[in-house]
Amino acid sequence: MTDQELMRAAIHLAREKMLAGAGGPFGAIIALDGVVVAQGWNRVTSSNDPTAHAEIVCIRNACAALQTFDLTGYELFVNCEPCPMCLAAAYWARLKRIVYGADHNDAAAIGFADAFIYSELALDKDSRSLQMQQVMPQEARDGLRLWLDLEQKILY
Amino acid sequence: MTDQELMRAAIHLAREKMLAGAGGPFGAIIALDGVVVAQGWNRVTSSNDPTAHAEIVCIRNACAALQTFDLTGYELFVNCEPCPMCLAAAYWARLKRIVYGADHNDAAAIGFADAFIYSELALDKDSRSLQMQQVMPQEARDGLRLWLDLEQKILY
Repeated sequence: MTDQELMRAAIHLAREKMLAGAGGPFGAIIALDGVVVAQGWNRVTSSNDPTAHAEIVCIRNACAALQTFDLTGYELFVNCEPCPMCLAAAYWARLKRIVYGADHNDAAAIGFADAFIYSELALDKDSRSLQMQQVMPQEARDGLRLWLDLEQKILY
Repeated sequence: MTDQELMRAAIHLAREKMLAGAGGPFGAIIALDGVVVAQGWNRVTSSNDPTAHAEIVCIRNACAALQTFDLTGYELFVNCEPCPMCLAAAYWARLKRIVYGADHNDAAAIGFADAFIYSELALDKDSRSLQMQQVMPQEARDGLRLWLDLEQKILY
């Protein structure tokens, strides 16, 4: 399938699942060389999971189907630009390309917080509306460093 | 429990689950007024899910336990500063406060991409290492706008 065909499928998926009451109007497809390997749609309200955005669900579905945590070379098609959560997830999954339709300002125009969260992440920790506080940094750092010495670990 | 007691528990959880082979050295706890409601640990490699960071798993567990997608007033305790995916998830979940131990530079020091992904999200779309491409914006935007007219929708 071409980029446009995959985008049309993502737009259709978003609409159908929104109308079925699954959640917000977002749909995602992961493909390799134009061949679909997984799809996902927003299920935040229907599954009581604020992380269940279309892209996250789609990444999880693709990884389950392929039995890997590494989607190097795969491409994500989504009807709206990913929020920071989903964009960072795409980096962790090592996706190669994101093809999107509407952008995060369009998401803001229908009431979603994407643009706000992008602006919050760009602020210093002390200036964010979500309060962040550091405690016991040395103990925590000592714990992290055990990772370096761990044998047989799987890097990701 | 105090902030320090909850942080100590998160550090302990991170260590135990890392040693058990679950994944990276990260543990998280969600509490309300010092009372634990959920915990989570990194399960990226053991569950083949690149989104299964400690904080994401913990948010999902808390929401499942409480049967809600809205954690307004709840607090997250995590042994390392959240990556952008997990920080944005905390905003979507409406958490009140994040208490963290080590920071994302400490995570970078043991080989994790948190700092890199923070820097990527701050770039213009065209400058990111993950290629982003917009197609069919008008069709996608028209689809999003159906949300405004949908009756009986649940806002999140």
